Amino acid sequence: MSKQFLINGSASKKISPFDRAFQYGDGIFRTFVVEHQIPRHWKYHYQKIVDDCRAINILPPKEKDLLSDIKRLFKTQKKAVGKFIISRGESLRGYQFSSSIKPNRFLLKTKIPTYPTKNFALGVNLTICKQHLHPSMLSGIKHLNRLDNVMARNEWKDRHYVDGILLDPQGQVIECISSNLFFRMGKIIYTHPLKNIGVKGVTRNLIFKIAPTLGFKMKEVTFNFNKLLKADEVFITNSLFGVWQVKKIKNTSWQQQSLASLLNELLKAIP
Amino acid sequence: MSKQFLINGSASKKISPFDRAFQYGDGIFRTFVVEHQIPRHWKYHYQKIVDDCRAINILPPKEKDLLSDIKRLFKTQKKAVGKFIISRGESLRGYQFSSSIKPNRFLLKTKIPTYPTKNFALGVNLTICKQHLHPSMLSGIKHLNRLDNVMARNEWKDRHYVDGILLDPQGQVIECISSNLFFRMGKIIYTHPLKNIGVKGVTRNLIFKIAPTLGFKMKEVTFNFNKLLKADEVFITNSLFGVWQVKKIKNTSWQQQSLASLLNELLKAIP
Repeated sequence: MSKQFLINGSASKKISPFDRAFQYGDGIFRTFVVEHQIPRHWKYHYQKIVDDCRAINILPPKEKDLLSDIKRLFKTQKKAVGKFIISRGESLRGYQFSSSIKPNRFLLKTKIPTYPTKNFALGVNLTICKQHLHPSMLSGIKHLNRLDNVMARNEWKDRHYVDGILLDPQGQVIECISSNLFFRMGKIIYTHPLKNIGVKGVTRNLIFKIAPTLGFKMKEVTFNFNKLLKADEVFITNSLFGVWQVKKIKNTSWQQQSLASLLNELLKAIP
Repeated sequence: MSKQFLINGSASKKISPFDRAFQYGDGIFRTFVVEHQIPRHWKYHYQKIVDDCRAINILPPKEKDLLSDIKRLFKTQKKAVGKFIISRGESLRGYQFSSSIKPNRFLLKTKIPTYPTKNFALGVNLTICKQHLHPSMLSGIKHLNRLDNVMARNEWKDRHYVDGILLDPQGQVIECISSNLFFRMGKIIYTHPLKNIGVKGVTRNLIFKIAPTLGFKMKEVTFNFNKLLKADEVFITNSLFGVWQVKKIKNTSWQQQSLASLLNELLKAIP
């Protein structure tokens, strides 16, 4: 499988360099797992697509069009990654757009990453990024302005680290580049509230649903790096791998525990 | 003239939705006037392209390739707008890029805007945007992450305002959406230093060169909105229109003065 895609449901359409996703990152995206031609956690992903489009005044795509795209592009039963990009549409020049502009939707299909089984069994290592996240009026939206993440992810090449911790300029821990970050102290699970910074992933929101069924209390707090290192347990979440426990950050290590596996089992049970 | 473009020097190449400019806004751009097939203030624009590419670790394009693109796409003597987009290149999925990734260059040609002559003769009106600019480690770079500008520019439809003033969250005046902003008090011209916020335009930098030849002193200071309203004169600059005096902001009006015209004359004399 090479790079496959559909543009507005068609395999033969072209992208114009006048598309505003290309010119300004003027659009949103969403990445998800497709298995047996069914997008995992679709209800939550579709809701986030709708919310994100509305947040920047793009008319959200119809659910039936997105599902029909998925059916058309994912023809085999094999697990793969789907990614929708919804752009505001095409315009000539300048930041202004007309109220009659027509959004474009793109569906991209790529291979499912082959994650080492030890990531699930033993946990993963995180690095700390020099690139900071800054508060923004557009935070929370999974928009196409992702240069902060790009620069942060390219601070290291070593496969030793699966992701990097992003701090704000005051040194508060916000999230990782491609995942949300949680820590546990006793029976309480903490994470940053992500009010005007960062992006709340679909898997992050599902953790708030399922962790209480295991007897945990969820709390949103701001916290610095030292606080994180004192946690009983740290884990990260995203839509592709689900949950990974963190094994090591700098010189602090954690023993493998059962929470990440339990959460992964519960996540798999959610349609 | 409709939408014309070249991709890596060719009119027949296609954009892939796997291009990182499209996926993450992972690239830079530059807009300039082309007249008699010659890009205005080219030396400064090319230097900014090189600086911006280097700032995000993209190999800068060769000057001869850019000039050859311009020659190929701008065949008539007529004035038009050129825009280069340099993207990091194509990758499969994820923020990481390989060190061997090959940048793509795009040249877009659009009509020159027909600005009302009264903008030059009498000045223009500015509005104040609700959308704030936030400090960022990537500020100063004319990268493709421009959703702040897009959202700000679409706060109004009324042609009465040519541009909008952007404030930071503390209420300091930074710049306008598509132009840099200056104010004059006596023989001193002030503007924001744009150290970790905003973008220093090529025309802004040229004002620092030419205004002293008219006997003005240039000073970079932070200032709030009330300070701006007390100025003897306010003007804005960008690469397409040059310099426009500001006629009115909210209830404060300024009489037409000669500085903007003088600066425009001097700008035209710079190759």
